[in-house]
Amino acid sequence: MSKKIVVIGGSAAGPKAAARAKRLDPSAEVTVIQKAPEMSMASCGYPYFVAGVFNNRNALLSTPYGEVRDPHFFVNTKGIVARTETEVLSIDRERHIVKCRDLNSDATDEIPYDKLIIATGARARKPPVPGIDLDGVTTLQSMRDADFLRSIRDEGTIKKAVVIGGGLIGIETCEALQLSGIDITVIEMLPQILMFLDWELAKVLENHVRSKAANVITDVKLAGFVGNNGKLTAVRLENGTELPCELAVLAIGVEPNTDLAKAAGLEIGTTGGILVDEYMQTSAPDIYAVGDCVEVVHRITGKKTRAPFGDLANLEGRVAGENAALGNSVTFPGTFHTGICKVFDFNAGSTGLSESRARQEGYKDVVTVINASLDKPEFMGAKLLISKMVVEGTTGRILGVQCVGPGDVGKQVAMAAMALLGKLRVSDVVTADLPYAPPFSLAIDHFIATAHLMENKLKGRLKGMGATELKGKLDKGEKPFLLDVRTPGEFDTMRLGIGETLIPIGDLRHRLNDLPADKEREIVCWCKISLRGYEAAILLEAAGWKNVKVLEGGVMAWPYRREK
Amino acid sequence: MSKKIVVIGGSAAGPKAAARAKRLDPSAEVTVIQKAPEMSMASCGYPYFVAGVFNNRNALLSTPYGEVRDPHFFVNTKGIVARTETEVLSIDRERHIVKCRDLNSDATDEIPYDKLIIATGARARKPPVPGIDLDGVTTLQSMRDADFLRSIRDEGTIKKAVVIGGGLIGIETCEALQLSGIDITVIEMLPQILMFLDWELAKVLENHVRSKAANVITDVKLAGFVGNNGKLTAVRLENGTELPCELAVLAIGVEPNTDLAKAAGLEIGTTGGILVDEYMQTSAPDIYAVGDCVEVVHRITGKKTRAPFGDLANLEGRVAGENAALGNSVTFPGTFHTGICKVFDFNAGSTGLSESRARQEGYKDVVTVINASLDKPEFMGAKLLISKMVVEGTTGRILGVQCVGPGDVGKQVAMAAMALLGKLRVSDVVTADLPYAPPFSLAIDHFIATAHLMENKLKGRLKGMGATELKGKLDKGEKPFLLDVRTPGEFDTMRLGIGETLIPIGDLRHRLNDLPADKEREIVCWCKISLRGYEAAILLEAAGWKNVKVLEGGVMAWPYRREK
Repeated sequence: MSKKIVVIGGSAAGPKAAARAKRLDPSAEVTVIQKAPEMSMASCGYPYFVAGVFNNRNALLSTPYGEVRDPHFFVNTKGIVARTETEVLSIDRERHIVKCRDLNSDATDEIPYDKLIIATGARARKPPVPGIDLDGVTTLQSMRDADFLRSIRDEGTIKKAVVIGGGLIGIETCEALQLSGIDITVIEMLPQILMFLDWELAKVLENHVRSKAANVITDVKLAGFVGNNGKLTAVRLENGTELPCELAVLAIGVEPNTDLAKAAGLEIGTTGGILVDEYMQTSAPDIYAVGDCVEVVHRITGKKTRAPFGDLANLEGRVAGENAALGNSVTFPGTFHTGICKVFDFNAGSTGLSESRARQEGYKDVVTVINASLDKPEFMGAKLLISKMVVEGTTGRILGVQCVGPGDVGKQVAMAAMALLGKLRVSDVVTADLPYAPPFSLAIDHFIATAHLMENKLKGRLKGMGATELKGKLDKGEKPFLLDVRTPGEFDTMRLGIGETLIPIGDLRHRLNDLPADKEREIVCWCKISLRGYEAAILLEAAGWKNVKVLEGGVMAWPYRREK
Repeated sequence: MSKKIVVIGGSAAGPKAAARAKRLDPSAEVTVIQKAPEMSMASCGYPYFVAGVFNNRNALLSTPYGEVRDPHFFVNTKGIVARTETEVLSIDRERHIVKCRDLNSDATDEIPYDKLIIATGARARKPPVPGIDLDGVTTLQSMRDADFLRSIRDEGTIKKAVVIGGGLIGIETCEALQLSGIDITVIEMLPQILMFLDWELAKVLENHVRSKAANVITDVKLAGFVGNNGKLTAVRLENGTELPCELAVLAIGVEPNTDLAKAAGLEIGTTGGILVDEYMQTSAPDIYAVGDCVEVVHRITGKKTRAPFGDLANLEGRVAGENAALGNSVTFPGTFHTGICKVFDFNAGSTGLSESRARQEGYKDVVTVINASLDKPEFMGAKLLISKMVVEGTTGRILGVQCVGPGDVGKQVAMAAMALLGKLRVSDVVTADLPYAPPFSLAIDHFIATAHLMENKLKGRLKGMGATELKGKLDKGEKPFLLDVRTPGEFDTMRLGIGETLIPIGDLRHRLNDLPADKEREIVCWCKISLRGYEAAILLEAAGWKNVKVLEGGVMAWPYRREK
């Protein structure tokens, strides 16, 4: 008798699990139940549809060769029954049955299963504030949301919008709407946007978003929505400010949809996601769960975490599909929280732990370095990359890498993700053999250069100082000697303006008299990206100064307001 | 007393070694001796200067902030003495002295060393054929060569050129000259260009080069150069053909410059490069050697090999500089032969072993798979990638990855290089957590998708057939049933035309009667990239056919002439 495999949820993880199960056991009867009218939506593509990067809505629902993934497609191509606009009411574990309701006819029926895969996803979090139901308050979570925001772009009547939440989806939505000609303000209750980045890198992004005429306000809390005749007119902050707008997009994160699982008595994990083991199996042996509704293992900390990413949903679905079809045979080892987003002309990505996350997780022995450099030679149209590497000091094991800038961030983070997968140490990366030719990278790739700086730091050769540390010292009234070693031309175009002295690196050897006579005085050196700054520090140390630091990332990674 | 460190060679590895040594021991007297007038040339950038991608010659000789790396720069910024246009005549190991000659004054002198670093590089190989000294026969190895070829572009009088050698430099030179409006023919004595690729991927590149109106002739040998009044008029092949041309660029590889080392009695390795250990130390304890003149360890095979790549020259220089300054403390572990090049609109890269190289090296248990897919979603402006992964069957360890296509090859090869560094197996990569967002990749990245196909193959689920195997069968008169499962529209635009039947994947379930009645008959399925081909194979196997194969990489990876 053929095995009955039922999948609840038809977005990303569900269809992948179903397809995998059917491929491995072609005799199985595989059914996918989906509440929405659409299936297999490329939901990460919504912001680009909203922004008008492309206009064909079906592109979000199609295979690469242009066939729409509707129930006909699933039956004909995959041999899978797909029931859309069908809600699952409950799971009867005793009888191995799923109770459903057809949203059009209201008819209910029961679908028996041998193996069940729950892929109920997540829903946008909604704060319990006044006015949340006003017309004009939305999320960007469903195809319907995408259609609504796209229609706003196409109609062109809305002038002002507020995005609530400066996370990944909030920032992508900000860009999409700004590109639609709408005046945007992003509000974020935390001190920074994009919490997967450390503060100083997030500020670089924030400055870029502002440079694109989208406003960003951090450290503010949403109080509620103000309306008139049921229509949104403003967003009210806890500090009393009202931001007039006709549209507000909530992007304060997602919550796993665990109601069905809970009602069926399945165990829920400490993070609020459905508890699964490495086989993606729930506390009930015949039930698997995958995608945004589960919690998984963080591969650095070993702790449970939620990782609602579209790529992981697919990989989890593939594992659960195989195990449901063939018995437990493959495992999903977890996440490094690898993520990336595009924000106007900048990209921002991260894998593993940020410094602040590492410290929260209790790591004591954390060493970090910031590296700013080009992604390829200047003569090939170079763009800037700013990376921060986080390592465990004693072992040199890489715990995480963040990277921001207009340059090729995707490659940097992909390499770093593979480095984490291989449990590599800094000493492994310093001699990595990467693909080099001028159209693709510098002779010493940015990633290797970051590892070189880190190695110098771990061996006590590079005494780096972060921008936040320097700013803190200055704010406290400390007076380190500040030394910019760029050319006068560079200094005229762009400078920090925090009391620094300019001595170009090429002149430094002959101008040591212009430096503090006190050899114990703290000196902080920098250049555009701090390679010359490092050179200067070595020169000054050789000349007898005892307390010389390098400002990591130089002018480019300075997250505060510059004089120029 | 300060340590005297002398470096012979001022291109890539030498200056890096010198700079590193001086940084780590600022009291050392560091001298670089360079025969050419220039220092620290970005020689990998020559083809792009010749092509007119940029016009500022100094960009090849400058730091990222625009300062020319001449002897003044080395003294002022680095504290290093650089002697250009100075030839080293010999190394006196007994007296720890290097004998030099000033090329301008012809004066000779002696420079004492405590530690010597040899970075004499490599020279373009020149075949002993008639006419080699004719005007118009050149290489692209030195700044002078680059100036000469650039002047040809600028003058615009030369109409026809022949590039001898279809390796990396030959192909880059081909592009550079073609972009300068010159009619190009590349001749290669081997059956394919770009030997770091397996034949079928190299053919895809070769077809692309031809599509750009540059001719490629493989399997032909150079007989000599024909001239008139000392000027080149044609290239003569061994088969008697003469290719009229006014310019011929020799690009048949490089030979390590080991004369000085040999004369000094240093050991030369089996591959012809200077023998060094993991500290980059030669057979003489006070002498290190780095860059294109040495041989290093291949990190997959463990054997010695030559790896004349600009990035490795820098990394080796960094290691030797540190060891020369501080005593042996860091090591250079070797190469994966990672390389990449841009060829018109295509990129081609590789890391680790190709299939043919693995077989040459004696690996018996080699499994390969070809994957063709997009680098990101269609709606984000996707481009094609074709990868071939080579693994050790029993362990699943990845031995090598090659990738070609207009897509983001650099990222693919960089990830693969990190995977090799981490000694990863296919089972590690199938659940890799990579940075996903639509501007950067597909939800299942091409690299992971390649690993998925490989996993299916290793587990016996995907029975793949390479294009060469299928072509071989057809040429032998075998008659497998050939099944293209794309849409009629796709079939009309582009098809192999080798006797295939078209049945779109969505119709296949209902048209099983159109397939061979004999369930033992071999069937080969494909689509554009063979995802649907795989789907079809599973469907047919489930329907009882016993011998169903998938054409790996589908239409896109077919290296032979297509009907359309």
